[in-house]
Amino acid sequence: MRILGVDPGTQRTGAGVIEAHGNRYQRVYSETLSAPKSASASQKLKAIYEFLSGVMTRFSPDVLALENVFYSKDLKAMVKIGEARACAMLAASDCGVNVVEYAPARIKQAVSGNGRATKEQVQQMVRRLLNLKELPPPDSADALAVAICHLHSHTSSLMQVS
Amino acid sequence: MRILGVDPGTQRTGAGVIEAHGNRYQRVYSETLSAPKSASASQKLKAIYEFLSGVMTRFSPDVLALENVFYSKDLKAMVKIGEARACAMLAASDCGVNVVEYAPARIKQAVSGNGRATKEQVQQMVRRLLNLKELPPPDSADALAVAICHLHSHTSSLMQVS
Repeated sequence: MRILGVDPGTQRTGAGVIEAHGNRYQRVYSETLSAPKSASASQKLKAIYEFLSGVMTRFSPDVLALENVFYSKDLKAMVKIGEARACAMLAASDCGVNVVEYAPARIKQAVSGNGRATKEQVQQMVRRLLNLKELPPPDSADALAVAICHLHSHTSSLMQVS
Repeated sequence: MRILGVDPGTQRTGAGVIEAHGNRYQRVYSETLSAPKSASASQKLKAIYEFLSGVMTRFSPDVLALENVFYSKDLKAMVKIGEARACAMLAASDCGVNVVEYAPARIKQAVSGNGRATKEQVQQMVRRLLNLKELPPPDSADALAVAICHLHSHTSSLMQVS
C-alpha cells in the first residue's frame, strides 16, 4: 500500500509518500513546494496542482491523505487553506486517486500518542517512525504524518522498516 | 470588453458573462451550477472547474472577476469558499484568463449604490441594469454583479443596452 500525505498551503505545500510492506513501512519520498513570492494567487494554485499531479504520476499512490483543518483564528487563512486543499483534490480527481481526510488531533495522536502534540514533537516522531537521518522540514513532516495516520487507521501492529 | 463574473461555492456556483459595447453593456450568458448531493468533495470541485472552463472556452472572456469573501461566521464555510475559489482560479489559469477580485461591499456599491445592500436588492438591481425580463437566481445575480462591478471600475458613464 502506498500513501501520499499532503499538507496543503498557498505559501508552502508538503507532500510525503510512504509505502507499507507487510507490517512495516518506510518513506519513499517527501518534499515541500514553496510558492515564489512574486507569483499571483492563480499561479501559486496552479503550481500546487502541478506539483501534486507530478507526485501522483511519479509515485502512483493508492490514496491521498489530507488533513482537514477547520479552525484558525485567521479567517483569511481559512480561505487560503481551502484554496490549497482544492488543488490537491482536483489533482487527485484528475489522477484517479481517492481522497481521505483526518482531523489534526487524530494525526497527532497517530504519530505521537498525543492529540495535542506540538509541531516539533510531530517532526521528531515522524523522523523516528520512518528512521530518517535528518529531521524533515515542518511541512514535509506534517505530510508524512497524515500518511502515517492513514496507514495506522487501516492496519494494526505496523513497524517501520529498519 | 467581455467579463466573466463568478460567485463560487461548493454547493452552487454562479457564472455570468457581460459584454460592453462602447458605453453600453448587456448580459451574454448566466447560469448557476448546482452540485449533485451525492458527489464527493473532489467530484464537486472537479464539476466547478469543468463548468467554468467550459464557460471560458465558450465565451472567451477578457477577464474573470471574483468576489473576495474573507468573512463568515462559519469557519468551515470559509474553507469551502476557498476550495470553490481555487477551482475558478485554476480554470482561469488553464484558459489564460486574468483574475481580478472585488470586495463584497464594493460590488454592492457598484450595482446598487449601497455597500450594505441585501441579496434581494442586488438581484433587483442586476435585473434592472441588464434589462432582464426575469429576476436572475441569487448566485447568477451575484456573478453578474461582480462582472458589472469590474466594468464600472474600468469605464465611466456606462449605460446598459436597452
